[in-house]
Amino acid sequence: MAPPHAKSSGKQAGKALVVPLNNGISVTKEANFSQWYQEVVTKSQASTFFDVSHRLFPFPGSAYTDQLFSKASSMHIWNTIRAWFQTRIEQMGVEETSFPMFLSAKSLEKEKEHVEGFAPELAWVTKAGDKDLEVPVAVRPTSEAVMYPYYAKWIRSHRDLPFRLNQWNSVVRWEAKQTTPFLRAREFMWQEGHTAHLTEQLAEKEVLEILELYAGVYEQLLAVPVVRGKKTENEKFAGGYWTSTCEGFIPATGRGIQGATSHALGQNFSKMFDITVEDPNKKGEKIFVWQNSWGLSTRVIGVMVMIHGDNNGLVLPPRVSKFQVVIIPVGLTAKTSNEVRENLAKQIQDLAGGLKENGVRTEVDNREGYTPGFKFADWEMKGVPLRLEFGPKDAANSVVTYSRRDTGLKGTIPLAEVAKEVPVLLEKIQQDMYDKANEYFTSHRLTLNDWAEVIPALDARNVVLIPFCGEPSCEERIKDTTKSDEHRELGPDGKPQPSMGMKSLCIPFDQPSGIVQGETKCLNPECGGFAKSWVMFGRSY
Amino acid sequence: MAPPHAKSSGKQAGKALVVPLNNGISVTKEANFSQWYQEVVTKSQASTFFDVSHRLFPFPGSAYTDQLFSKASSMHIWNTIRAWFQTRIEQMGVEETSFPMFLSAKSLEKEKEHVEGFAPELAWVTKAGDKDLEVPVAVRPTSEAVMYPYYAKWIRSHRDLPFRLNQWNSVVRWEAKQTTPFLRAREFMWQEGHTAHLTEQLAEKEVLEILELYAGVYEQLLAVPVVRGKKTENEKFAGGYWTSTCEGFIPATGRGIQGATSHALGQNFSKMFDITVEDPNKKGEKIFVWQNSWGLSTRVIGVMVMIHGDNNGLVLPPRVSKFQVVIIPVGLTAKTSNEVRENLAKQIQDLAGGLKENGVRTEVDNREGYTPGFKFADWEMKGVPLRLEFGPKDAANSVVTYSRRDTGLKGTIPLAEVAKEVPVLLEKIQQDMYDKANEYFTSHRLTLNDWAEVIPALDARNVVLIPFCGEPSCEERIKDTTKSDEHRELGPDGKPQPSMGMKSLCIPFDQPSGIVQGETKCLNPECGGFAKSWVMFGRSY
Repeated sequence: MAPPHAKSSGKQAGKALVVPLNNGISVTKEANFSQWYQEVVTKSQASTFFDVSHRLFPFPGSAYTDQLFSKASSMHIWNTIRAWFQTRIEQMGVEETSFPMFLSAKSLEKEKEHVEGFAPELAWVTKAGDKDLEVPVAVRPTSEAVMYPYYAKWIRSHRDLPFRLNQWNSVVRWEAKQTTPFLRAREFMWQEGHTAHLTEQLAEKEVLEILELYAGVYEQLLAVPVVRGKKTENEKFAGGYWTSTCEGFIPATGRGIQGATSHALGQNFSKMFDITVEDPNKKGEKIFVWQNSWGLSTRVIGVMVMIHGDNNGLVLPPRVSKFQVVIIPVGLTAKTSNEVRENLAKQIQDLAGGLKENGVRTEVDNREGYTPGFKFADWEMKGVPLRLEFGPKDAANSVVTYSRRDTGLKGTIPLAEVAKEVPVLLEKIQQDMYDKANEYFTSHRLTLNDWAEVIPALDARNVVLIPFCGEPSCEERIKDTTKSDEHRELGPDGKPQPSMGMKSLCIPFDQPSGIVQGETKCLNPECGGFAKSWVMFGRSY
Repeated sequence: MAPPHAKSSGKQAGKALVVPLNNGISVTKEANFSQWYQEVVTKSQASTFFDVSHRLFPFPGSAYTDQLFSKASSMHIWNTIRAWFQTRIEQMGVEETSFPMFLSAKSLEKEKEHVEGFAPELAWVTKAGDKDLEVPVAVRPTSEAVMYPYYAKWIRSHRDLPFRLNQWNSVVRWEAKQTTPFLRAREFMWQEGHTAHLTEQLAEKEVLEILELYAGVYEQLLAVPVVRGKKTENEKFAGGYWTSTCEGFIPATGRGIQGATSHALGQNFSKMFDITVEDPNKKGEKIFVWQNSWGLSTRVIGVMVMIHGDNNGLVLPPRVSKFQVVIIPVGLTAKTSNEVRENLAKQIQDLAGGLKENGVRTEVDNREGYTPGFKFADWEMKGVPLRLEFGPKDAANSVVTYSRRDTGLKGTIPLAEVAKEVPVLLEKIQQDMYDKANEYFTSHRLTLNDWAEVIPALDARNVVLIPFCGEPSCEERIKDTTKSDEHRELGPDGKPQPSMGMKSLCIPFDQPSGIVQGETKCLNPECGGFAKSWVMFGRSY
């Protein structure tokens, strides 16, 4: 079912259109989530027909790669995140770098455990022009193997520590599986930080500082609540020591989704690449440095779309939306005099000017030949947080009519108050979007003590916290035994598919009480071992 | 011969070092330019031994790629340029984008003329993991073939024009030739702008606006003079209409170097990719859009190093240098009292604080165990524009001693004036560096009317302006007949090599007088045709 406010806009959009509105979505988010998502992120490409600069999310999904950032708005979101994060890591002392995109087979041999995970997805350059390369090179899936040989050369003394570099680039993982815009692409944009420290404690401190920044990107910029925690052995970064993560939740499917990960690599890589310094306390003895790596990708945008989007299209949080407000002239008919038209245009110009002066990213939709209803639907598709309507009636009453994209709530603001009130309203929208998503996540994260409740909870679109032993083999069994042959979900082809088993999402840092070490049992009835902690499990992306 | 000021620093550097100074350069710029350049951009990697964050230009020159931006300073230069240029193209209405890095063989087929030039350098991904790809993909050498199929979809109406996108990324051209850091690398960073316009005139206006920004990057940021002009048919962008360029000059070798190019593509690509709009003046008739593409790469940094660097290392223009000023405590001996030391440290801290408040990027070198002389040489290697020395004698006189990196000139500034005077001095250094380079370029750009003077002028390390017919075949002959078997230049292997022939650098927009159309002959004695314009020729990179 479409939310209540969708109906009115739908009606407006249906009125006498000059050109057909072809950015509508053919399915509801509730009926076929997978197709809804694909359409929301691709369909608004149709809007290029009318207005290039506001084009959103055109993902042509070509055969070879499917990550395409060709319109201003998703680029704006990513650049906003980039600037926010970059400022904060600079304050921490992390420097920007840029390493080559290729890595040789030779450097890969050093780190077999790590590489095994990536090997099937490595894209190999074997030819230059029509000549075979003597030594093929792979496009980086991540840069440990590219960077760490240099770390071994550059880090010579404990005075070089902490050694911290970050780069913004794109990496390639040649997925054989179905790709999904933003979530699973063969090429994707991200940042990758690679740091080295003298002690485990110093490294650990940074891992958690970065995780907090990642959570901040979700919570403060994208209005997406996350659960902070640690990955289980099964789910940690290949070759690392331990992995911290922030985990999101997609209400429409009840699935968990990994948000971003910050890895403690321990000394595993420093031993492989021989990255050492002399112990400052014991002359002549060498210490293998403690390393971290951490990455945040454009996946964040996909998570945001999945959580906030609705049956009218995107819903963007004000803090990241390129345009926060769109002003649409309304109430003009063939009978409207030129004088009224001109006055209205002038007032709208003043309105926009006042908003821009107050730092509100404002767009006026003066396109001719389109009805207000068409424009409403078009900007709703694009997710702009706040629509202001202004017509002769509003002018007569000295008000402007607003409509919130997130709730559909409408109201009026006195003209004289607009420049002051809109920033407040935008912040309220930001907060409300977060609160709504957070309430949903909180109420669909069930703490269970009875195995019999697990599958029904998953089927009711929840994730669950259960007492768990932490053993990889037990986790594998749980994944198997929670699979279901009942066809409750629609696959990308629109056909019902068997439900997937649940996997561990994280060991939340914020642990409920109730587990007594050496007493509380692992909830898996086949296990029989003792539970170490509450672990969040769920079906997931 | 080293310039006069090099000697004194050399002496200082020679004093009782705690650790050996291993960032010295083994050859002079004058004796073996090619090796000097390689060493300047690679050797300071040795300084990581002491100070990671100031490491400059570490180019490990690995087998597979040689473009590596792993230290803060060159990244700072590139980011400064990026911010400067990005601000200005945003004001022009260019939007940021990010297209995939791969292109398919199919999209390449559309634009044979353009592709021919790149074909031998295309890096082909043929395998994913251990599986052969059904359709191999190439890593972009430039993105026309990636982007223009989408332009054809997105540009539907003249109201979509001008359509302007720019992206910052890296591209791959698998050079078979010897690579040179920054100048010729298999992977390099750049920006590429791709725009479409309704008319030839609108497109042309943009081509020249962008060229002016490129010239601004060189002249205003890098203190490098350039000559603006148009490429000859022989040298224009493959598949384009005409190419504008700014051309630099390397005094040490007397060679020209292409700075950056802004291309009018005409309608060649819009016809290949079928990018059309309806003529706003003639209903039903379609217009192929007029396209431009323009790119500026990290090559700019190489040009800057070659022009300004000297036998003590890099010389960085203040506007782009990560650190503009380094303060080094001097005059402390084993006999210096703790009180004097502490006072000095306090005063240096105040000095640095005052400079930073005035926007001067300042570093204090408090490393222990190193002599001032060692530090002087170290920071000279890194090219920091201004060194301030402060010791008990300076404190007693209430002055600070300065030394300019560009000229070696020394002097004192009253302590109370430092925060005010240093920004002025830095701007003077910036201007003097430009003036010096400009004077050299101007006096080594000879306008010749006699063919007999051409080769001697080249041998004397000049470029030349000559009357030229513009014919590609004539240009090819000139390249051949100006080759010389005399071994005057040293190759990358340090051995003398034959002098290369001259090629056309550009047709300067600023034309000397003296050519009468249909009367003045092309200077090539074999030609016999009439000259169309003065064309700048030279040996080049």
